[in-house]
Amino acid sequence: MKTITLAHGNGGQAMQQLIGELFIRAFDNPLLGIQEDQARIPLAELTACGDRLAFSTDSYVIDPLFFPGGNIGKLAVCGTANDIAVSGAVPRWLSCGFILEEGLEMAVLEQVVSSMAATAHAHGMAIVTGDTKVVPRGAADKLFINTAGLGAIPADIHWGAQHIRAGDVLIVSGTLGDHGATILNLREQLGIEGVPESDCAVLTPLIQAVRHLPGIRAMRDATRGGVNGVAHEFAASSGCGIELDERALPVKPAVRGLCELLGLEAVNFANEGRLVIAAERAAAPAIIEALRSHPMGRDATLTGEVVARKGVRLTGLYGVKRTLELPFSEPLPRIC
Amino acid sequence: MKTITLAHGNGGQAMQQLIGELFIRAFDNPLLGIQEDQARIPLAELTACGDRLAFSTDSYVIDPLFFPGGNIGKLAVCGTANDIAVSGAVPRWLSCGFILEEGLEMAVLEQVVSSMAATAHAHGMAIVTGDTKVVPRGAADKLFINTAGLGAIPADIHWGAQHIRAGDVLIVSGTLGDHGATILNLREQLGIEGVPESDCAVLTPLIQAVRHLPGIRAMRDATRGGVNGVAHEFAASSGCGIELDERALPVKPAVRGLCELLGLEAVNFANEGRLVIAAERAAAPAIIEALRSHPMGRDATLTGEVVARKGVRLTGLYGVKRTLELPFSEPLPRIC
Repeated sequence: MKTITLAHGNGGQAMQQLIGELFIRAFDNPLLGIQEDQARIPLAELTACGDRLAFSTDSYVIDPLFFPGGNIGKLAVCGTANDIAVSGAVPRWLSCGFILEEGLEMAVLEQVVSSMAATAHAHGMAIVTGDTKVVPRGAADKLFINTAGLGAIPADIHWGAQHIRAGDVLIVSGTLGDHGATILNLREQLGIEGVPESDCAVLTPLIQAVRHLPGIRAMRDATRGGVNGVAHEFAASSGCGIELDERALPVKPAVRGLCELLGLEAVNFANEGRLVIAAERAAAPAIIEALRSHPMGRDATLTGEVVARKGVRLTGLYGVKRTLELPFSEPLPRIC
Repeated sequence: MKTITLAHGNGGQAMQQLIGELFIRAFDNPLLGIQEDQARIPLAELTACGDRLAFSTDSYVIDPLFFPGGNIGKLAVCGTANDIAVSGAVPRWLSCGFILEEGLEMAVLEQVVSSMAATAHAHGMAIVTGDTKVVPRGAADKLFINTAGLGAIPADIHWGAQHIRAGDVLIVSGTLGDHGATILNLREQLGIEGVPESDCAVLTPLIQAVRHLPGIRAMRDATRGGVNGVAHEFAASSGCGIELDERALPVKPAVRGLCELLGLEAVNFANEGRLVIAAERAAAPAIIEALRSHPMGRDATLTGEVVARKGVRLTGLYGVKRTLELPFSEPLPRIC
């Protein structure tokens, strides 16, 4: 069985081979092909699309590496792409940095790299620069990936949480907590049936379906911290309060069951392919309709509103409101 | 003693506190301050400086975290800045992704972050976006950092290894192997006296001192794989051969002694603040003079030439040439 050795990270022949035979081949594109220490992207390709460069990064340490609906490689492309896309930019260029544990099966790395390449390719993104480090056995757990991403924000888009006003509403693009529930079910071997696949997906096409609509104030994807995390960010940036309606939260039955079993709340569960949009109330029906007309947004729904009174609150099934704190800690380490 | 807990990476209150009280405070700048999922950089700031965007990334896994001349934080800023700077661009914006091991001392993280902030600030760079992950004890060794960097390449600079021609020469900007020797001496507890500090430094000022000079074909910084690694890259991209002259290689006595003791070659040792420049022969004296007039380039010297005959060779002390293979593996894991 072929495995990663320390030599694959040491700047010598073994590393050159790994880069040439695996990464350059899988990620094949002209910018990566020049093999200088940096990718060189014509600025004209950016200025043709917008007036600001969106730049974001995430490291991925998810355990296990493979899960229903994806793997760490697909996640590393989707997650960073989404952090760019929610600015209104189309994510175009990615960097990737691998930290590999000595002894990692080469076949695992190949599968992860192949997923990254396929996900990027399917959404018009190119992985244009990268880095590989290998650490001795025990100094890392199998495989970590960092990606950074770039895209240009169109000049007519100025989404930002500071624009949110009392009277606005919150829309989510799909069911909550699918990713978190999948990982929890898998890792804790809960064996709950009917738990959905991770929602891990590139959100660019869904965002493009609504980006021309008026009334959008701010957009995020709900990852670690879930919709509750986004609500707290929106509240902090805008100085307003957020009231979520439990009856309007789209949660799949198996995810609801898992939450009830463990005493957890779906609003805190991670997604990797769900939008939270703050919008003017009058604009919401058109935004929801546009989302629903896209396969990724079928379950889009209005789930909350922005109010003057500070704090984040949840209106329960019987109409009783309670304050929703940001948990000190989420239930799950290494969710992404 | 305050330490990192899993809660610091889970999207909840503890993570928000760590980000707000440590990262946002240390890296303080308006682009980071907006706290959206991405930094938004006005493209006008890029087009004013050049016509291509230089984009690069590296992960840093060095062991130990602190060493004479720097630490993993300073290294993470210098290394990525240099990968941008050798394109001719001035590195301006950085992302950073932290992977922290549960139990890491908070004081260690603070010291590393403070070094990153100071190094970036001293060279006009801003850390504008970032990410923090925490993994359970044993799933990573203390602290890994990824940085990605951006800058604009001036329209009149087109350095690239494919421009190298037979008859060109190779210039190095300072003594070889200082970083590698420091880490080896420290980690293997060799106790050799007089081993220099790591040369870890941001090379932008030194590159700016030569960038207007004619005759520069290509530029790299010699990191993993050392000058030999760069020579092999130059040879592969240009289709030429490289002949290095052992008598002309600037190596500090203690580094030479360490190499002789262990049977290693200084040309394979890592640097973190040394340029390798390929230039037209006639242009070399002016380039060397400009390098020497800068404190970081005092030991700059002509160390090799480009020839038609393929391969990398070293002319030894008695004039005998031998082929210099790219080692299959470098002696040292986790050198950067």
